[in-house]
Amino acid sequence: MSLITLTTDFGSGDYALGQVRGVIWQIAPEARLVDLTHEIPPQDILAAQVVLDDCASYFPEGSIHMVVVDPGVGTDRRPIAARLGTHYFVGPDNGLITPLLEKAEAEGGPVEIAHTNRQQYWLPQISSVFHGRDIFAPIAAHLARGVPLFELGERIDDPVRAGLPQPQALEGGWRGQVIDVDHFGNLGVNLKAPHLGDIQALEIRIAGAVIQRLSRTFGDGQPGELVAMIDSSNRLSICVVNGSAADLLGAQTGTIVEVFQIKSAR
Amino acid sequence: MSLITLTTDFGSGDYALGQVRGVIWQIAPEARLVDLTHEIPPQDILAAQVVLDDCASYFPEGSIHMVVVDPGVGTDRRPIAARLGTHYFVGPDNGLITPLLEKAEAEGGPVEIAHTNRQQYWLPQISSVFHGRDIFAPIAAHLARGVPLFELGERIDDPVRAGLPQPQALEGGWRGQVIDVDHFGNLGVNLKAPHLGDIQALEIRIAGAVIQRLSRTFGDGQPGELVAMIDSSNRLSICVVNGSAADLLGAQTGTIVEVFQIKSAR
Amino acid sequence: MSLITLTTDFGSGDYALGQVRGVIWQIAPEARLVDLTHEIPPQDILAAQVVLDDCASYFPEGSIHMVVVDPGVGTDRRPIAARLGTHYFVGPDNGLITPLLEKAEAEGGPVEIAHTNRQQYWLPQISSVFHGRDIFAPIAAHLARGVPLFELGERIDDPVRAGLPQPQALEGGWRGQVIDVDHFGNLGVNLKAPHLGDIQALEIRIAGAVIQRLSRTFGDGQPGELVAMIDSSNRLSICVVNGSAADLLGAQTGTIVEVFQIKSAR
Repeated sequence: MSLITLTTDFGSGDYALGQVRGVIWQIAPEARLVDLTHEIPPQDILAAQVVLDDCASYFPEGSIHMVVVDPGVGTDRRPIAARLGTHYFVGPDNGLITPLLEKAEAEGGPVEIAHTNRQQYWLPQISSVFHGRDIFAPIAAHLARGVPLFELGERIDDPVRAGLPQPQALEGGWRGQVIDVDHFGNLGVNLKAPHLGDIQALEIRIAGAVIQRLSRTFGDGQPGELVAMIDSSNRLSICVVNGSAADLLGAQTGTIVEVFQIKSAR
Repeated sequence: MSLITLTTDFGSGDYALGQVRGVIWQIAPEARLVDLTHEIPPQDILAAQVVLDDCASYFPEGSIHMVVVDPGVGTDRRPIAARLGTHYFVGPDNGLITPLLEKAEAEGGPVEIAHTNRQQYWLPQISSVFHGRDIFAPIAAHLARGVPLFELGERIDDPVRAGLPQPQALEGGWRGQVIDVDHFGNLGVNLKAPHLGDIQALEIRIAGAVIQRLSRTFGDGQPGELVAMIDSSNRLSICVVNGSAADLLGAQTGTIVEVFQIKSAR
Repeated sequence: MSLITLTTDFGSGDYALGQVRGVIWQIAPEARLVDLTHEIPPQDILAAQVVLDDCASYFPEGSIHMVVVDPGVGTDRRPIAARLGTHYFVGPDNGLITPLLEKAEAEGGPVEIAHTNRQQYWLPQISSVFHGRDIFAPIAAHLARGVPLFELGERIDDPVRAGLPQPQALEGGWRGQVIDVDHFGNLGVNLKAPHLGDIQALEIRIAGAVIQRLSRTFGDGQPGELVAMIDSSNRLSICVVNGSAADLLGAQTGTIVEVFQIKSAR
């Protein structure tokens, strides 16, 4: 089985996705397709990076992750495909690849990147505004059928890099930011367990609100209560029990979150 | 073919669904996945029950229905899996199972329920906030691969029961309620044909409006007209021809609907 | 592999789609299902025609396109299925078929249309409001399994025809209209390259705005700029760079667009 995941900013209901699936299945009828999400805010590369970073490890070895968030479509930004450890990436060369690339580099896995410019592997007609259908879908499908990576284009070593925003150390704490807002309005923050220090004595500040403990689950809070917990991606998450923290706090991607250790008065 | 249906409150665009699919396909690469809906209002167990109750019978014998609407995630509510007649259920033990369970009991089919607590069938890491990915998805996938139900956990006989709301008999009629609002704003009511009596002489009251006949199809009414008919689930449905009854009446799940027989003056 | 595409106005999240998939897979377990879109505005036949017209050619020969946009459900409008060139159509006889039919006729391909009225190929119970599940899904599934077209119903030669709106010639130009609004708010117009004449000297008028050149890509404009280009369906498209033309202009399906050649003063 070859498996292709799809992540785009097309919107779940857009029929452009139907065209992409048709193109892939004309070339690779056996490929299995999985939608990660098509609700990336238009042209929001960071949001797509977070999705890929959170999802890829749940897929089998050999999976191909096709990502189309492409503000530079039709300009001279390169189309690329890559082998990154045990997975593959297909998409525009605009930094989308960075989290998977850095992970593969850190793990010492194989890293091979191709500028997929051999037009015999594209559709015959190329729209200047829809490379997802005309270039990336056929490239992903040919990879799924077993065409070698460097048959699809020449090797490159200088992909555009755009890492996830990193937290800053403060005196006695860390400053991070919201990098993900989910369907429930839960706010995912780029701070992980090591940033939180002693979780018995911390203070979390976001948008004027202060939270002074880390809950283990929603069951620890009252309906409507603003709580902090470690989410399913191992990130600090700010939530409202049975409600929306995004709405309550007016928070969004980029909203600052600070965590401080509280000094005991003893 | 093993077939797994998915019903959640994650929202159609949430990439948590991508993680769930990845987990299932790592364990059961041949499983076929079908989305029933991911638009259950957050933590609305009744809405999920209605979906399951309406959909399950359209699927082949042996289908596995995985449902994740889970306000108690991370508390001590049990994860369960069950054989209910010719179908299977996987989800939290919070009443989601009740309509399928009652149907299987009424039909005298096999009813076997397991508390799926054997952690070797879960993912190695369990987030306290996402059992859909870490417990229910692998359980459903192992079932799809043929692992016996009671290998996944010990038999229980006391699942939480939470039946659909039942209509009340009134003098000369019935009081029911809206239990489903569809994409068009049509209002599904927990009253079926037997509650309606003589359909030549009835009066339906909802949110201050009165409807005095049952239409056979939308074609019987004028655009914009408020009509009542029997919907595709054999329930009384209140609709606006080419419009939204939910909007027109300000109605929602729980809105009261009363049906009375009209006495002839003869 | 038999492949069935689904286009409806049910809404992506509606569980009616789950029922349709269950019905198809009970009859044709090997069929592959692809969603084109379920976000057709309720009962908007034109929008569904545009989707089919844009998507069908990307699918393999033998694909079956099931379309359920059906304001006449339950009336005496006919259910039909058709072989149109190398593809198949299944849906109500209300004009949805016209673009594919006219294309097949223009290409001289086979055109065979059946009134699918043999009830042994329907579900046993027919709801008067959901022929998508009870008639079209089983018909599409039986076709996918290889049941001959005229086994499903008698041949007809008079399908309802409702062509896409055609542009009108003006003195020195053309008057067309918006026929598609995508997820980004880009406006697809029923004018193609031949209508535009000399693209070095044209003027495009829409909703009080004037555009005097054709961009090749979004990269040619500044963020927020209103631009015109040829879209991925080879149609004139009115767009806002990194924004929504629909919002900026208050435009929608049916909004008039005029293109004029500009006379040089030399």
